[in-house]
Amino acid sequence: MKQNRVYNFNAGPATLPLPVLEEVQNNFLNFNGSGMSITEISHRSKWFEDVLNDGINRIKKLLKLDDKYHVLFIQGGASLQFSMVPMNLINGNAPADYINTGTWAKKAMKEAKILGKPFKVIATSEDKNFSYIPKNFKINSDAVYVHITSNNTIEGTQWDSFPDTYNIPLVADMSSDILCKPFDVKNFGLIFAGAQKNIGPAGVCMVIIREDMLEKIPDNLPTMLNYKTYTSSNSLYNTPPCFGIYIIQLVAKWIEETIGGLVKMEELNRKKAEMLYKCIDGTGFYKGTAEKDSRSIMNVTFRLNSEQLEKKFIEEAKKNGLEGLKGHRSVGGCRASIYNAMTLDGICSLVDFMKNFEKNNG
Amino acid sequence: MKQNRVYNFNAGPATLPLPVLEEVQNNFLNFNGSGMSITEISHRSKWFEDVLNDGINRIKKLLKLDDKYHVLFIQGGASLQFSMVPMNLINGNAPADYINTGTWAKKAMKEAKILGKPFKVIATSEDKNFSYIPKNFKINSDAVYVHITSNNTIEGTQWDSFPDTYNIPLVADMSSDILCKPFDVKNFGLIFAGAQKNIGPAGVCMVIIREDMLEKIPDNLPTMLNYKTYTSSNSLYNTPPCFGIYIIQLVAKWIEETIGGLVKMEELNRKKAEMLYKCIDGTGFYKGTAEKDSRSIMNVTFRLNSEQLEKKFIEEAKKNGLEGLKGHRSVGGCRASIYNAMTLDGICSLVDFMKNFEKNNG
Repeated sequence: MKQNRVYNFNAGPATLPLPVLEEVQNNFLNFNGSGMSITEISHRSKWFEDVLNDGINRIKKLLKLDDKYHVLFIQGGASLQFSMVPMNLINGNAPADYINTGTWAKKAMKEAKILGKPFKVIATSEDKNFSYIPKNFKINSDAVYVHITSNNTIEGTQWDSFPDTYNIPLVADMSSDILCKPFDVKNFGLIFAGAQKNIGPAGVCMVIIREDMLEKIPDNLPTMLNYKTYTSSNSLYNTPPCFGIYIIQLVAKWIEETIGGLVKMEELNRKKAEMLYKCIDGTGFYKGTAEKDSRSIMNVTFRLNSEQLEKKFIEEAKKNGLEGLKGHRSVGGCRASIYNAMTLDGICSLVDFMKNFEKNNG
Repeated sequence: MKQNRVYNFNAGPATLPLPVLEEVQNNFLNFNGSGMSITEISHRSKWFEDVLNDGINRIKKLLKLDDKYHVLFIQGGASLQFSMVPMNLINGNAPADYINTGTWAKKAMKEAKILGKPFKVIATSEDKNFSYIPKNFKINSDAVYVHITSNNTIEGTQWDSFPDTYNIPLVADMSSDILCKPFDVKNFGLIFAGAQKNIGPAGVCMVIIREDMLEKIPDNLPTMLNYKTYTSSNSLYNTPPCFGIYIIQLVAKWIEETIGGLVKMEELNRKKAEMLYKCIDGTGFYKGTAEKDSRSIMNVTFRLNSEQLEKKFIEEAKKNGLEGLKGHRSVGGCRASIYNAMTLDGICSLVDFMKNFEKNNG
């Protein structure tokens, strides 16, 4: 590959589109004729405002968001959103419903609990190591929101379609699959996504919030923890994470102009995932960990016959320029994270490697 | 200048050392032989851990921090620290003391008030538009900390030496002058600094906390708002703002290896400030806004005879490649922010321009 780059299957921070990285590099000492780096320009300058507003407009266009939705950029990652969501939206005795599909859902519930906010777990797949997305559950009619994790990075599962919540707002942690496919936002009250998987570098979390959710927010929140601070200032109350927002803008532009939009993005992502799962399902040498109807098209998790063989697989892959195939330390095994920016070439290289490895070790 | 770069006198985000920017640019597609961009490598990889630990060690060395001090990287800027400090450290009825030296001190107090935490304002310079640093004040013997703003970006004042607080921990917002000069940290319980002025890009706040401060922290704080989350994980509880930390590391290296340490850094900063103040004090055409013994060596604020003339000054400066000389929108006038990375050449160009402008408009 160009510049001795590798194929990067890390779960996040993760691979970014090469044309985006090249644009950042080429303009790094002089952004848009300003004579300054993007890291040096004032966040109150026309240069940066253009970046911010173009980024927001492109996200709105890709996701078909109407004027009821705000696109915000907040620091602290999804981990801070786990606290901000209940802090802002659970404001009284009515509970929120949480669906427990793995590590990140558990972390979200942990923060609601620390805050002493009422919530109910209405479904969980913990009985089978979170290897599936729950199907039959009953949403409480008084729930203030229903919290889901749209894609489970560690367990390799993903919501294929989103549940009908009968006008109760969905809140979704989409950190690892935002912009991987089109979806209908109208049931969502709030979406958050740490950028470092599918849309940018670490250090910025995109939050999409529907106007009516703002009415639930109590008055006495710390300024930086109140969504209204961001909606009323266009994310410019204080200095925002400018560099991360810039990359999100370029990634949104790349999806629209190079890939051709979210329908095309989904086609490509499904094709990539199918190639990998086909290889995994081939002979029994590799075993997928997620149930077939819950499989993620972003994080493909699989096991080999022994931990020793997995270690060998990961090491040999690395030697072949295939980086980051180790599963999360909490579950072990192997994982190929194949976000938007992972190319078909990368998938072909991985599949070739897997077939060869099987031949030599099967 | 190289690459058609300008001299950037913005208050933050602000100019960064050109050798640092060039290093980032050169390695942007392949960091340290990893085959990945610094924006793509895992925060749990050896590559990033080396960046993080080298950055921390260099900061510790520059500031002569002993093992009692932790160096942390937190998102949300100084604005989130305004909340985190009282949330973590005021834990009971004993109040904190605040010294009000301007806009940022007021914002810090606003957040303590939102949280309902007890605090007292023991000194203020509001009587004279914050044009000086208060000298005579009495620290409450039961204060849990004394909060100061070491440099006031908007008002152009700076603490020349720090007050003796008789073992009550100092808490300082050093966003705009951290690493501009050596100082004795032993009286400080906590220091925070948004990076985007003197040490890096926007999106990362460096926090230095003394071990004994951790004992004050209540148990029920949201995970991301508890300093212990960061001290116990080496700032790696969740994905940190990797790119910003990387630039801080390079800036610390530049101060140490290119400038020659903080003593040399201070010499250079004082020389730059003296050249500018000498020009301002010359004839009465320019008028410094801060009292002479409180003047900042980082943000040089001055006025001209009329707002119209100030506007002309700022516009003509811009045409001469001198960017960002407009004062903060809340106070007007002119301001030259001359952080560590502003070169002597930049100061000479500004002084030359100021003399010419005076000749043509005096």
